[in-house]
Amino acid sequence: MNKDRITSILEGYRSGALGMEAALEAFKGFPTADLGYAKIDTQRELRVGFPEVVYCAGKTPDQVRGIVGELLGRGCSVLATRASEEHFAALAGFGERLLLDRVSRTARSAPAPGAGAQAGSGLVAVVCAGTSDLPVAEEAAVTAEACGASVLRVVDVGVAGIHRLLERVGEIRKADAVIAVAGMEGALASVLGGLVAAPVIAVPTSVGYGASFGGLAALLAMLNSCAAGVSVVNIDNGFGAGYQAALIARRAVGP
Amino acid sequence: MNKDRITSILEGYRSGALGMEAALEAFKGFPTADLGYAKIDTQRELRVGFPEVVYCAGKTPDQVRGIVGELLGRGCSVLATRASEEHFAALAGFGERLLLDRVSRTARSAPAPGAGAQAGSGLVAVVCAGTSDLPVAEEAAVTAEACGASVLRVVDVGVAGIHRLLERVGEIRKADAVIAVAGMEGALASVLGGLVAAPVIAVPTSVGYGASFGGLAALLAMLNSCAAGVSVVNIDNGFGAGYQAALIARRAVGP
Amino acid sequence: MNKDRITSILEGYRSGALGMEAALEAFKGFPTADLGYAKIDTQRELRVGFPEVVYCAGKTPDQVRGIVGELLGRGCSVLATRASEEHFAALAGFGERLLLDRVSRTARSAPAPGAGAQAGSGLVAVVCAGTSDLPVAEEAAVTAEACGASVLRVVDVGVAGIHRLLERVGEIRKADAVIAVAGMEGALASVLGGLVAAPVIAVPTSVGYGASFGGLAALLAMLNSCAAGVSVVNIDNGFGAGYQAALIARRAVGP
Amino acid sequence: MNKDRITSILEGYRSGALGMEAALEAFKGFPTADLGYAKIDTQRELRVGFPEVVYCAGKTPDQVRGIVGELLGRGCSVLATRASEEHFAALAGFGERLLLDRVSRTARSAPAPGAGAQAGSGLVAVVCAGTSDLPVAEEAAVTAEACGASVLRVVDVGVAGIHRLLERVGEIRKADAVIAVAGMEGALASVLGGLVAAPVIAVPTSVGYGASFGGLAALLAMLNSCAAGVSVVNIDNGFGAGYQAALIARRAVGP
Amino acid sequence: MNKDRITSILEGYRSGALGMEAALEAFKGFPTADLGYAKIDTQRELRVGFPEVVYCAGKTPDQVRGIVGELLGRGCSVLATRASEEHFAALAGFGERLLLDRVSRTARSAPAPGAGAQAGSGLVAVVCAGTSDLPVAEEAAVTAEACGASVLRVVDVGVAGIHRLLERVGEIRKADAVIAVAGMEGALASVLGGLVAAPVIAVPTSVGYGASFGGLAALLAMLNSCAAGVSVVNIDNGFGAGYQAALIARRAVGP
Amino acid sequence: MNKDRITSILEGYRSGALGMEAALEAFKGFPTADLGYAKIDTQRELRVGFPEVVYCAGKTPDQVRGIVGELLGRGCSVLATRASEEHFAALAGFGERLLLDRVSRTARSAPAPGAGAQAGSGLVAVVCAGTSDLPVAEEAAVTAEACGASVLRVVDVGVAGIHRLLERVGEIRKADAVIAVAGMEGALASVLGGLVAAPVIAVPTSVGYGASFGGLAALLAMLNSCAAGVSVVNIDNGFGAGYQAALIARRAVGP
Amino acid sequence: MNKDRITSILEGYRSGALGMEAALEAFKGFPTADLGYAKIDTQRELRVGFPEVVYCAGKTPDQVRGIVGELLGRGCSVLATRASEEHFAALAGFGERLLLDRVSRTARSAPAPGAGAQAGSGLVAVVCAGTSDLPVAEEAAVTAEACGASVLRVVDVGVAGIHRLLERVGEIRKADAVIAVAGMEGALASVLGGLVAAPVIAVPTSVGYGASFGGLAALLAMLNSCAAGVSVVNIDNGFGAGYQAALIARRAVGP
Amino acid sequence: MNKDRITSILEGYRSGALGMEAALEAFKGFPTADLGYAKIDTQRELRVGFPEVVYCAGKTPDQVRGIVGELLGRGCSVLATRASEEHFAALAGFGERLLLDRVSRTARSAPAPGAGAQAGSGLVAVVCAGTSDLPVAEEAAVTAEACGASVLRVVDVGVAGIHRLLERVGEIRKADAVIAVAGMEGALASVLGGLVAAPVIAVPTSVGYGASFGGLAALLAMLNSCAAGVSVVNIDNGFGAGYQAALIARRAVGP
Repeated sequence: MNKDRITSILEGYRSGALGMEAALEAFKGFPTADLGYAKIDTQRELRVGFPEVVYCAGKTPDQVRGIVGELLGRGCSVLATRASEEHFAALAGFGERLLLDRVSRTARSAPAPGAGAQAGSGLVAVVCAGTSDLPVAEEAAVTAEACGASVLRVVDVGVAGIHRLLERVGEIRKADAVIAVAGMEGALASVLGGLVAAPVIAVPTSVGYGASFGGLAALLAMLNSCAAGVSVVNIDNGFGAGYQAALIARRAVGP
Repeated sequence: MNKDRITSILEGYRSGALGMEAALEAFKGFPTADLGYAKIDTQRELRVGFPEVVYCAGKTPDQVRGIVGELLGRGCSVLATRASEEHFAALAGFGERLLLDRVSRTARSAPAPGAGAQAGSGLVAVVCAGTSDLPVAEEAAVTAEACGASVLRVVDVGVAGIHRLLERVGEIRKADAVIAVAGMEGALASVLGGLVAAPVIAVPTSVGYGASFGGLAALLAMLNSCAAGVSVVNIDNGFGAGYQAALIARRAVGP
Repeated sequence: MNKDRITSILEGYRSGALGMEAALEAFKGFPTADLGYAKIDTQRELRVGFPEVVYCAGKTPDQVRGIVGELLGRGCSVLATRASEEHFAALAGFGERLLLDRVSRTARSAPAPGAGAQAGSGLVAVVCAGTSDLPVAEEAAVTAEACGASVLRVVDVGVAGIHRLLERVGEIRKADAVIAVAGMEGALASVLGGLVAAPVIAVPTSVGYGASFGGLAALLAMLNSCAAGVSVVNIDNGFGAGYQAALIARRAVGP
Repeated sequence: MNKDRITSILEGYRSGALGMEAALEAFKGFPTADLGYAKIDTQRELRVGFPEVVYCAGKTPDQVRGIVGELLGRGCSVLATRASEEHFAALAGFGERLLLDRVSRTARSAPAPGAGAQAGSGLVAVVCAGTSDLPVAEEAAVTAEACGASVLRVVDVGVAGIHRLLERVGEIRKADAVIAVAGMEGALASVLGGLVAAPVIAVPTSVGYGASFGGLAALLAMLNSCAAGVSVVNIDNGFGAGYQAALIARRAVGP
Repeated sequence: MNKDRITSILEGYRSGALGMEAALEAFKGFPTADLGYAKIDTQRELRVGFPEVVYCAGKTPDQVRGIVGELLGRGCSVLATRASEEHFAALAGFGERLLLDRVSRTARSAPAPGAGAQAGSGLVAVVCAGTSDLPVAEEAAVTAEACGASVLRVVDVGVAGIHRLLERVGEIRKADAVIAVAGMEGALASVLGGLVAAPVIAVPTSVGYGASFGGLAALLAMLNSCAAGVSVVNIDNGFGAGYQAALIARRAVGP
Repeated sequence: MNKDRITSILEGYRSGALGMEAALEAFKGFPTADLGYAKIDTQRELRVGFPEVVYCAGKTPDQVRGIVGELLGRGCSVLATRASEEHFAALAGFGERLLLDRVSRTARSAPAPGAGAQAGSGLVAVVCAGTSDLPVAEEAAVTAEACGASVLRVVDVGVAGIHRLLERVGEIRKADAVIAVAGMEGALASVLGGLVAAPVIAVPTSVGYGASFGGLAALLAMLNSCAAGVSVVNIDNGFGAGYQAALIARRAVGP
Repeated sequence: MNKDRITSILEGYRSGALGMEAALEAFKGFPTADLGYAKIDTQRELRVGFPEVVYCAGKTPDQVRGIVGELLGRGCSVLATRASEEHFAALAGFGERLLLDRVSRTARSAPAPGAGAQAGSGLVAVVCAGTSDLPVAEEAAVTAEACGASVLRVVDVGVAGIHRLLERVGEIRKADAVIAVAGMEGALASVLGGLVAAPVIAVPTSVGYGASFGGLAALLAMLNSCAAGVSVVNIDNGFGAGYQAALIARRAVGP
Repeated sequence: MNKDRITSILEGYRSGALGMEAALEAFKGFPTADLGYAKIDTQRELRVGFPEVVYCAGKTPDQVRGIVGELLGRGCSVLATRASEEHFAALAGFGERLLLDRVSRTARSAPAPGAGAQAGSGLVAVVCAGTSDLPVAEEAAVTAEACGASVLRVVDVGVAGIHRLLERVGEIRKADAVIAVAGMEGALASVLGGLVAAPVIAVPTSVGYGASFGGLAALLAMLNSCAAGVSVVNIDNGFGAGYQAALIARRAVGP
């Protein structure tokens, strides 16, 4: 509730353009749509120009379909993450208005016809350590793309064979933000952090077994990275990394 | 070891400008200075224009003095973090060449005489939840400043009194990157994440007791933030947050 | 075994109204019914006027049916929680005497015909952060209602969109006790704690993934709340919160 | 920021009693005093009639003295918790205006001359398991008293000698809220929860060694209490329990 | 390899009754039967007179059948624990020679015809907190019986209704060893420890949810029992408790 | 509160030997002495014939002196554990009535003049893995002796040199109860459990570093012992092991 | 990127044998084959003469088939671990070129016809504590064999019956490297470490329940082994142990 | 107790060279010296030719002096680790017979005069990530040297500046065993594991803060290394790594 907003409502009220009831309404009404089981926060989209995001896990297929339908109906772009097969089935009815992607487990609204690449949204590099990390890496990549960024994908370059990574460093250095996706010991984030000048967002994955404790080992390793310039998101949170990277990349390109 | 560098050495060798021994040397020699107990990595500074950083904890005062002296002698700018009183004493001999700050526990090289604000380095907001979080917040702020950013400090705006935070949101929204510093339950990061469009870097602090487990509660809370656009650094790692925020802010201002 | 009870038995014995065997029996016999696999503690109900509660998880459908039948047969009101489909099937035979609710996973005895709202039992607000927290929030709400309280439900007002919560604060402040239900980082409890004057009972949920560790992140956050007036129950323990809130609310209304 | 408050400011602005600047100021100015290192939230006191609370740990003696002085100067009542000897020394200058208590590690403003017991604030029972739990129990008791409640203290009644507790149950049952303070295995909370009808707030303490893990064992035990009506605060958080118990007790007595 | 054994072999060798090869064989051959996938340790039975025990979990049905068959074939008594339905099916062929019990998930060799109660093996009390703890309690009881002890079963006497336990204390005090089986907060062990003079062996169970962390809460509580005379076995380890209790009880009765 | 006790009070009351007030008093008065900061539970001693135990950690020297003085004054035998130098100083005034032992950190009442060994109390073996485990082992040994048992001490027989243990097995097998004291990986308990027929009580110690996590590694190992007949007490809880072992040993010797 | 390799490329370039593009290519091209979803690192095989290893878990059957096919097609030997039934089905088409082993869950390329035992590769002893540890032990054994070592298998010699182990020590001492596989308390590693002079690689397994926490108890125990000469790999990581043991054994035999 | 040993004693007994008492004595007497507080296991030295090792932490200076003196008096070589200043003071009296090293916190017996390098003991590389890891790295290096190995020290080559490591790889590859010492995220072990063919023993250090949890982050990372050929020892266990590396290196050189 920033100053401009308050000023604007106050002026509308003083001038009579807004009555008391309408002014109160203005303070509370617009940013959400209430579906009973969910209040859709449209504020973020208005503010940052990114699509509305629906986290499907823990929601019933009916709830997901309801929320997505509401958003599409209002002309909002939408990104749904962590979709299961049941969710995909519930979303099938939207036809070509939604792009379903089973590798990244996402559904997103199709771009408007004729829409080209978004100018000036910057480049995000998504670098992942192993084949098993692909679903998380793709969630990050799809999210960044949905937020307007261009994406460079670099796959299966874990540090056990450091040459695989070194030969791609030249490309990666061109990115405005770098996402490092790795499970097991998560060393990729530290090595990347020492090789590039862009901010590195590290995504620990739950790939591993035993003392990886569902991704805890990679998470702790990334939080303790000896390289500066590295921050971390939750285990398997490709979405969070893609979203923040897109925020950084967009700001990095300027006019 | 990027392509340009390899190309350049290869060409030097083919042309005879570099002999075999010199070429091999070129592959390994320049980026570090070896003090016996430390190899100073000057590569990062050359690459990103940020000062060389010395993490004092775990190093003897003599080692810290030696490393700082080596860097100052080479004309490098330097930032030392986590300095204890013993470290400060060991650094006292550098006189006005170093700025010592006991709140943030840092020492940094004084800017060159006549150096003004660095144009185009962007604005970092450092927002902290409580008075006890100040040392970590200041480490973040000093680091960002040492890396060239302007810094807005917003102190003691924890979520238990949400009005304290809301009244400052207008200012915070002007920043290119936002650092959220909080201990206890660390809710500040999530609330901020929902209020601003800039990337939020969350720093959990060890402020708290009992089930805060030395900052673990805040760390987990921040990693699980329900707001998009939030990433996290290690507990009490003000330096890491300030460094990454400066990276983001610098890129955000463009030419 | 309070003083009045002992006094009464002693007097009965001295007067001869109770023989030795009967007196001993009186010390042990009445508060429980023994079904072999369970001793039903009817003491709590006699004391606080709340229904007897059956925690279904870990009990076989036959055991649950046996316990519920025993209670209904004695004219006790009953609330069964954590019922699975198997439990619901085993309870189907009680027909209209039991209300089955699959969202909250509860079954409870229907109110006596003609029974109106319980006067003077106070108002409990159940506030939840996200759609996925609904089952736990409903368990809390149903429990509070079964214990006689009126309930205000406020759904999907997580702190990532703080306006969603702020617009409902006026209503929530009318409650005698407030239940904050949230998973992920659990920040809702702290923000609510700073906004209302009633006691806040926080329920961490297992909603989340990765470093939420099954609700541990929200649990720790809530235990470390920077707001005063917040206490916490077990992860997903909607029942416990609803029960204690009803206790508080009932006392709050007085004669 | 509730509806009444917004309405009032809007009306003041429309009537001309408030100019634009003043209206904006009204939205943000009044609830806090800014000392540079701290923003004192006076909102809670205005709302609930409880003293302002200063958590001393992590604050310098100078900071604590400054905050307490500011509050006393404004005529606010104040409670300072977790005070060390250094804090007590810094507060000595306030003389009789502050009551210092080394067992509970608190300082609080003396009641106004002639002030009697606060009518209608209810009774809080503070029950503790062992002698070593006394500092935490006293913090709870002093806090509840500072918030206007009467307090019944029951000391050293751990469950290893269940008779010690049973003989006091009659008294404890008269309380409007019960605080159970215990370290080690924390079983006191469950046993009390089964014996009284008032809400039980459990405080795990760090008393113990080895696998108590600094109070974790008692914390987990209390969160898993098999008795209904029990909620839990942070380890050693006597303040939090005393505060919430006073909230409950005050509401329990009614007009 | 005790002194008597060494002496005996040495004497046999000196006398010529044992050749070198035979002596070496004597050092290694007798106590085990090697099935390829298992070496059956018959030593424990010879030593303590208890049946050989087969832990079924993690073994294939074929392996379990093989081991049990080998033991029965040698005339050993046998107790199999943690048997699944698959294991029961594999054991069905042994007919009346094995008693299968699905509540305790055990199979044991039937007593010899005409065998009466084992004189002088003492009494073990198995006390459990809730209905859901029954499988573990029964594993303890069946084990103690298989080892020759008499068993008193006391079911569903959790501390939330302390009277349920107090009315049975008189019986429990007659036991030579007491087993306390409880999940959730595990307070039963401490309360029992304060009420009886016999050694108490506590068995935490995995009954519970959320912050019980699979029985960890009860385990820690029992390890931190404020009552003396309590020791603890692994979570859900009814077998271990029954075995040790039988050892204690047998020794307690003497000639 | 057993049946005999209730019967006796009831009879006294019916006969008129006890008035109502006296009968009530009888239910509550005798087993404790109230020092204000402590209620001394004398019940355990009356019941089991073991000395009263004072856990010094967390109690002030004055409190410890007060409790010990009260007990000695009543002619009770007493054992104080976890005494620091400050506690020893506070106890010095009792002179020869107390035996102070700095290795085991205990103080105990001297046996009555002329008292010989307690007949029929059995033998406890205290076996420890390393020199650093000695303080815990001695706490166990002194406790067992204070409870009347004879004690065999076997020192520094860790499993890294299995021969050191094997050569003492003959002696250890003569004990009625065996205490296994070990830090680090705690393997001693499992090896002993396989070698003796007496119950083994395992005491994990905090000896170790790094991933021993203050004794957690040994604790978990002992709880997971592959040998039957092993139960476990808290980390460093020599007292608990000594107490339970004496209970077992005393029962093992019979009339 | 070792010196010889750099020297060789530099010389090739100076001599003209390599053009600039070819030289750059040489720096990056050869060690991997890019399948899109995987970059196959053939470097390790070239270096150490061990087969290429494919970790199947987390890869789709199609991906595993693709990688194995690529390797077989290039004439590489291959070892696939953690194969599920789905993976085995996908690999069935390779016929006799692959050996499938369901106990160890591995598939490996058949040795060339006529290939005998690899001379000079040393002996690895794989020692396991229980029948349930067999799959992990077999993974270790098969891996060591695939890397050329001879393997001695010693099964079911857990420390609860120490004689079972002692009678095999003579054989085990002949090995160049010893692998100790154990779950539960993992004591086998420490006992073995004290009995043999070869390096011991300990493999904790997830065999156990309750406080074994999926192998954590054994892992911690092995890390804290009181015997020197023991190192540890991840829980259930038979492959890692077999691989390192083969490395050690091969070096131990010399020319 | 291997077969040769048993054979030899048996033959001695049969021949009459050993009487029964002497034979029994032979089974138990020789490998240890009993100092009361310690049994010195001289068996390991006899077996592997490595010095006897004394772990000082947790032992009193007197105990350490006693053990070291006993060993030196028997002509054994000795290595004492984790020595504090108090231990060094207690050892000062041995003069030149002991080499004291405060960086590695070790004391070891001086080599015999004229003793040169031990032929054929192989080369161990000790590689450490940062200056703060030096004490642990030196403990590893000194241990390896005390066991006869040659040692290559490579300091401060953490992965944040991968070039620092790459330029030393050529040297490191010459080692028979490689020790990787690193705190923080411990990535050094994985990177080294991919670069060398020798076995890598990883030593996590407690260097770090916050979410390093005393070395846990590095420990987990190393256990989850994506590179084959890596095993791990306890946090800060330089001794363990040095010991095992020397074992491997010695075997690697052969005749």
